[in-house]
Amino acid sequence: MTASPALSRPRGTRDFAPEEMERRRAAEAVLRATADRFGYREVATPTFEHLELFTEKSGAGVVQQLYHFKDKGGRDLTLRPELTAPVLRYYFAELTARPKPLKLYYLGNCFRYEEPQSGRYREFWQFGTELIGPTTSEAAAETVALAHACLAGMGLRGLELRVGHIGVLKSVAKALGMEDRDRQQLFALVDKREVAAKEPEARAILSKYAPSASVEPWLALLRDLGTEEATRERVLADHGAVIAAQPELQKAFDVLGETLQLLQALDVRGFREDLGVVRGLDYYTGVVFEFHSPDLGAESQVCGGGVYNLAELFGAEPVGSTGFAIGFDRALLALQNAGGALPAREGIAAYIVPIGIPARAKALEVTTSLRAAGLRVDVDLMRRGPSKCLDYANSIGARHAVLLGSKELERGVATVKDLRSGAQKEVALAELATALGARP
Amino acid sequence: MTASPALSRPRGTRDFAPEEMERRRAAEAVLRATADRFGYREVATPTFEHLELFTEKSGAGVVQQLYHFKDKGGRDLTLRPELTAPVLRYYFAELTARPKPLKLYYLGNCFRYEEPQSGRYREFWQFGTELIGPTTSEAAAETVALAHACLAGMGLRGLELRVGHIGVLKSVAKALGMEDRDRQQLFALVDKREVAAKEPEARAILSKYAPSASVEPWLALLRDLGTEEATRERVLADHGAVIAAQPELQKAFDVLGETLQLLQALDVRGFREDLGVVRGLDYYTGVVFEFHSPDLGAESQVCGGGVYNLAELFGAEPVGSTGFAIGFDRALLALQNAGGALPAREGIAAYIVPIGIPARAKALEVTTSLRAAGLRVDVDLMRRGPSKCLDYANSIGARHAVLLGSKELERGVATVKDLRSGAQKEVALAELATALGARP
Repeated sequence: MTASPALSRPRGTRDFAPEEMERRRAAEAVLRATADRFGYREVATPTFEHLELFTEKSGAGVVQQLYHFKDKGGRDLTLRPELTAPVLRYYFAELTARPKPLKLYYLGNCFRYEEPQSGRYREFWQFGTELIGPTTSEAAAETVALAHACLAGMGLRGLELRVGHIGVLKSVAKALGMEDRDRQQLFALVDKREVAAKEPEARAILSKYAPSASVEPWLALLRDLGTEEATRERVLADHGAVIAAQPELQKAFDVLGETLQLLQALDVRGFREDLGVVRGLDYYTGVVFEFHSPDLGAESQVCGGGVYNLAELFGAEPVGSTGFAIGFDRALLALQNAGGALPAREGIAAYIVPIGIPARAKALEVTTSLRAAGLRVDVDLMRRGPSKCLDYANSIGARHAVLLGSKELERGVATVKDLRSGAQKEVALAELATALGARP
Repeated sequence: MTASPALSRPRGTRDFAPEEMERRRAAEAVLRATADRFGYREVATPTFEHLELFTEKSGAGVVQQLYHFKDKGGRDLTLRPELTAPVLRYYFAELTARPKPLKLYYLGNCFRYEEPQSGRYREFWQFGTELIGPTTSEAAAETVALAHACLAGMGLRGLELRVGHIGVLKSVAKALGMEDRDRQQLFALVDKREVAAKEPEARAILSKYAPSASVEPWLALLRDLGTEEATRERVLADHGAVIAAQPELQKAFDVLGETLQLLQALDVRGFREDLGVVRGLDYYTGVVFEFHSPDLGAESQVCGGGVYNLAELFGAEPVGSTGFAIGFDRALLALQNAGGALPAREGIAAYIVPIGIPARAKALEVTTSLRAAGLRVDVDLMRRGPSKCLDYANSIGARHAVLLGSKELERGVATVKDLRSGAQKEVALAELATALGARP
């Protein structure tokens, strides 16, 4: 009776019980309906892709965690770690002729080989959107508003929304001509709010690129960008001289300001301007944002997104693109931790109990006609006695039991037992569907 | 502007456009609702499993086509080729304490490395059910009825349903003590109705096991089982002497007869008794069935299932188990070939057009309030002029356009244009949601 370990579930994956699937499908329905109201339509792409799709523009962290394999033709394939690159691949291959804006959403599973921990699995689900065409602040603001509506619709409360512009940090790196590795290292310090704590490390990186006189002004700017209190006004006031020389930095500040203003029109409240938002993927170029839940631990992020550019990867002309992804499992976990999980659905309307062998075929007939009337109905398939059948009907939460004995059947009636109140009554078979709640 | 070939879609896989996703989701909803009416509940399992789960009891054809890979811990994993073994793994690991019958369904993607051809893909979807507990003919019959209701609900017509009992052929193999390879080779001949055409091959196999005097009677039985006309009555009449000595064969005939009778009570009509149904997987033990569509080519099967036993694989006590799987993509292809594909859904209720820059924020406000009223609404995010906006609204099939100019906004009204009739009228902003069809 002991199973081989190899017949267990693979590490870091999950099986989903009926109750859990009902909650997940209900949450999915909310997300679909919300995207739908915003004029988005669903697309889907394959579960595996050519490896190259993810090794070019994704962050190093993603690439190290790929489930990579060769198919029998020797091609390098990988289970998808995220869905933006696949959806954009599909767009550039087949959808470029569609009218813009093109509003696409997806809901699919992704895979990362990482150590399993609370809320992090090797197979996980993402719901996300891609808005292709516009490059306006309205596009960025509406994307934030949609993410907000999706999370609120799922029932998440007390979320922290941080909105920034990746162009602020990128223009610093560009002005200094920094190499990728140094840039990533420096940005990681800003992202973790560690520039002040690890000042020597940050100074050493900057010293490789900036003339010695300007190292300290850059360092001061980066230290401030990575603080909770940094706003455009304050940073501009404190670092005017450095910023004045960087038109791209100034433009990033302007676009972010306009976007934040439009968020008010879109009824998104309580967001926080955050000039130190970095995002894990290299392809972001403009406004970026993250939602964090108070109901998760240190890994509090449930959604992230922004304005990005993936056109170069496909050898295509740039096209405006803005999107986000919600960590579906993490969002559900936050909901559960907050005690706000969607309720499981009701049990079936009736359990049909044939009494004695001759009633069996008739019970199947009655069951079939009730199902045809749209009712959720089940019937004894185990040839159990009435008392065991009633136990079972109660155990699965059936609303009624319908007892069919030979004598009743001769008279064209059945006994209907209300399993909550225990009340019993005779009902004509012709009236049975209505008595059990079928809509006429 | 030319993309790298590695950035194309992997061979044998598909991207799904919005119109196709709407059809697929509508069909999925039908399948879920049908399973639901029969008292089934959904479960889900991981996309990859330990390789061993599929190499033990699946047919050789399945194993050769696995997408097999090693994870970074050296474990042999594979993308799942089907979902019965995973669901039963889950059952034996975690669900055995649930009341029986346990009625489970799944809808998931599966993977087989085979040459892509019409209706066959390397990633494909299966909808299926597992009924765990009962061993009665009612259980087998209700399973056939559910598969029938699912396919009919999707809109498939003119299906051929073949019902048989794998015990008929298996008892022959058992009586003769045949080895697996010979058994599979012989059954393949029966399955393809080729026993008559390839008589020497069949005779050679039988001669390895049967005393020379009984080779011809066995051969005659197998030849008849593999014909379209074989019924229990006829086979019993013609081969009484051979069958009389085999109680298991007789029992298979009895169970099949009882099951076929119950199908009538379940309102399943027009099925065909088929004693030569083999099924591709070795784990079937009882009643087996297949649905074939006249709207597909030579590969006409859209659904298959039956009574099976997978308990040994998990070192567990046997438990009654009956299920089926519908090839979701093949069923949709049959539907499409028959011209009966589900219609794509309607366009959005309204496209909001701000006229001039000052109206932009107000347009986002109006859009937000309409979405909050449950309407599917979109808004210009490209800062286009009114005429281009109307072109776009028409191209995405919007029902109305709502024009918001500064002067109208001062008066608290908007211009609503019906994009079918071309009629225009002024509507107060407070009445806009109702005018666009929101339910109060």
